[in-house]
Amino acid sequence: MKQLILLAASALLALPAAAAVSETTLPGAAGPTLQPDGRITFKLKAPEARTVQVAGGDGLGAGPFDMTKGTDGLWTVTTPPAVPGFHYYWFNLDGVRVNDPASRTYIGYGLETSAIEVPEPGAGYYELRDVPHGAVRDQWYFSRTAGQWRHAIVYTPPGYDTDIKTHYPLLILQHGSGEDETGWTRQGRSNFILDNLIAAGTARPMIVVMDRGYASKDQPDTLDGTRTAFTAFEEVVLHDLIPTVDAAYRTIADREHRAMAGLSMGGMQTLFISLHHPETFAYVANLSGPIIPDLRGPRSTDQGFHDRFDSKTAFEGAFADPAGFNRKFKLFWMGVGTREPAVFRDTIGGAVRTLKSAGVKVVYFESQGTAHEWQTWRRDLNDLAPRLFR
Amino acid sequence: MKQLILLAASALLALPAAAAVSETTLPGAAGPTLQPDGRITFKLKAPEARTVQVAGGDGLGAGPFDMTKGTDGLWTVTTPPAVPGFHYYWFNLDGVRVNDPASRTYIGYGLETSAIEVPEPGAGYYELRDVPHGAVRDQWYFSRTAGQWRHAIVYTPPGYDTDIKTHYPLLILQHGSGEDETGWTRQGRSNFILDNLIAAGTARPMIVVMDRGYASKDQPDTLDGTRTAFTAFEEVVLHDLIPTVDAAYRTIADREHRAMAGLSMGGMQTLFISLHHPETFAYVANLSGPIIPDLRGPRSTDQGFHDRFDSKTAFEGAFADPAGFNRKFKLFWMGVGTREPAVFRDTIGGAVRTLKSAGVKVVYFESQGTAHEWQTWRRDLNDLAPRLFR
Repeated sequence: MKQLILLAASALLALPAAAAVSETTLPGAAGPTLQPDGRITFKLKAPEARTVQVAGGDGLGAGPFDMTKGTDGLWTVTTPPAVPGFHYYWFNLDGVRVNDPASRTYIGYGLETSAIEVPEPGAGYYELRDVPHGAVRDQWYFSRTAGQWRHAIVYTPPGYDTDIKTHYPLLILQHGSGEDETGWTRQGRSNFILDNLIAAGTARPMIVVMDRGYASKDQPDTLDGTRTAFTAFEEVVLHDLIPTVDAAYRTIADREHRAMAGLSMGGMQTLFISLHHPETFAYVANLSGPIIPDLRGPRSTDQGFHDRFDSKTAFEGAFADPAGFNRKFKLFWMGVGTREPAVFRDTIGGAVRTLKSAGVKVVYFESQGTAHEWQTWRRDLNDLAPRLFR
Repeated sequence: MKQLILLAASALLALPAAAAVSETTLPGAAGPTLQPDGRITFKLKAPEARTVQVAGGDGLGAGPFDMTKGTDGLWTVTTPPAVPGFHYYWFNLDGVRVNDPASRTYIGYGLETSAIEVPEPGAGYYELRDVPHGAVRDQWYFSRTAGQWRHAIVYTPPGYDTDIKTHYPLLILQHGSGEDETGWTRQGRSNFILDNLIAAGTARPMIVVMDRGYASKDQPDTLDGTRTAFTAFEEVVLHDLIPTVDAAYRTIADREHRAMAGLSMGGMQTLFISLHHPETFAYVANLSGPIIPDLRGPRSTDQGFHDRFDSKTAFEGAFADPAGFNRKFKLFWMGVGTREPAVFRDTIGGAVRTLKSAGVKVVYFESQGTAHEWQTWRRDLNDLAPRLFR
């Protein structure tokens, strides 16, 4: 099998017009080569190494894949077709997990991690286009809750600097576990997605804040999605982040103009926080966040990801009165990719079915053929943003 | 010698109160340990590796340093005292240059590169402090010169969003070869330096644009400081970057309110561009940029870094009329670290002496005990910014 793959790689490498380089490759570097069908040829120069593998995130396919050493000390392998999207990867070099020196790195898995972009044919909605661009800004703020400085990324829409009397609605948009506040712009291209939607007139100009989704009252900074990523982060969002953004930017500071959304861990945080604060949020979106119906209760061993979703009791009864819920929340949105692992598809799909049966209005978005990675979440944002603040 | 160093490491590792972790270490990761005297203990878990070394940039001391494997597969070495500052480093793992998985990475040497921060005792001028913070923004712009989109970082001072009738002077601030537009904020902490100076009232509020210092009319993007980093970049700065910034931000768009500064390659670019455009710039600063007096002439083999600096002919006669030069340029600033290699110290120091003898007004700043790295350039900016636009 390995030999077959390598044979295919050699054949394809002889077709230079067909192969492409990923946008994530450093300028001038010899990064992985993309075949039109989604196969990827990975390379690492390591003449003295004994074993080299490539491994990666959901979306790259199974793995790790053994690489084979050429006479020039260049190890290569061509992987089976990957789904379109943004895929983290790394090499196991004599047993040590290392990045591809040819790749830019991104915060994923709590580490700097190489990545490859497999383009989706015809999908221009997340590209840098010749339209007015919003600003992407660093925002430092002191959190009284956490007793430390925090860093968030803020998107202000095109025109923000010149239309100085205009106030805007606010979307809080959160990353996943092991990632950080830079994920939604660097990996997710959220700013380009919004630029393009706003230019097309399909999304309302809005301010987006992408915060660091970890918080603790007594621990140093972390990249782990532990319990405090829910409880302490809830306080940070309500008492530190929103007041900071409302003071520093021209927001419309009421619930009707405030949304929270997040992916994976960020989706869990969104449900945990926003469902219990209808006084703060009128728009709620969970992007591939697996459902733990009793996440707000005291943790016990029988809790966890499951589809025993009771709409009366889940999230401390947030959905117990469907008509009341539908009146309070202007949008309740859930999404998942059809190639995501079962824990995401089953718990989200199950909750959506149960909630709809109970009369809760849910917008459900399935991303066809994408995995638990950024292409799903880019599509999600592209579907979600036009529905906000209407 | 190696054994002595390792012995010292063991002794110091037993003094937890004395050792510290670098700010560049990823949260929760086991990064290098800093001793109070500047020695650094590097670690890499690699049970199957045969050889591991650590190597780094100017400022880390000589190297590479051989590391020694412990019984647990953890390779360690403690290096001699490093000067304070921001030092790039990497491991040679069985001959392959890899990053420290425990470190954040920064664009240096044309690659993602690990780094360690050796704090300068008592130096708070580049720290995040509880003062009003300017905004750090991403700026995309289409360059007609290069025929492609470019990315720059823009700092707008505190109050920019609220003092909406105020216009500001502009500093163009450039990185070094192998680095990119993110260097001055991520490695250099230019935004915090300016926040602190502006809060203290010692620097005038200004807009700072930090552009990507590579440009070409017919080549893909690069991280190499080749010839086009001068000629094509000059056109980008004059015809694309400055018009973009003047249109998008509230600058004072005249020469009296425009400065250019850069470090190393960026200093060379600054001299190359600004000395020949007094109609555009009144303030010029070269931070550790080695002097090639005939850089603007056609390249020939006898040109290069040297101290045969003739103030009549250097830079196509830009200094030939000292009185005229002094009238045109409000500030001509040059700086170098005393621990930098001779090519920097000698060519810059030599040019300064020659220019002063000829009657050219030069502000010369020597950074004591620092190398060709970011601590020198942080100090430079701290000295330079208060002198601008006075």
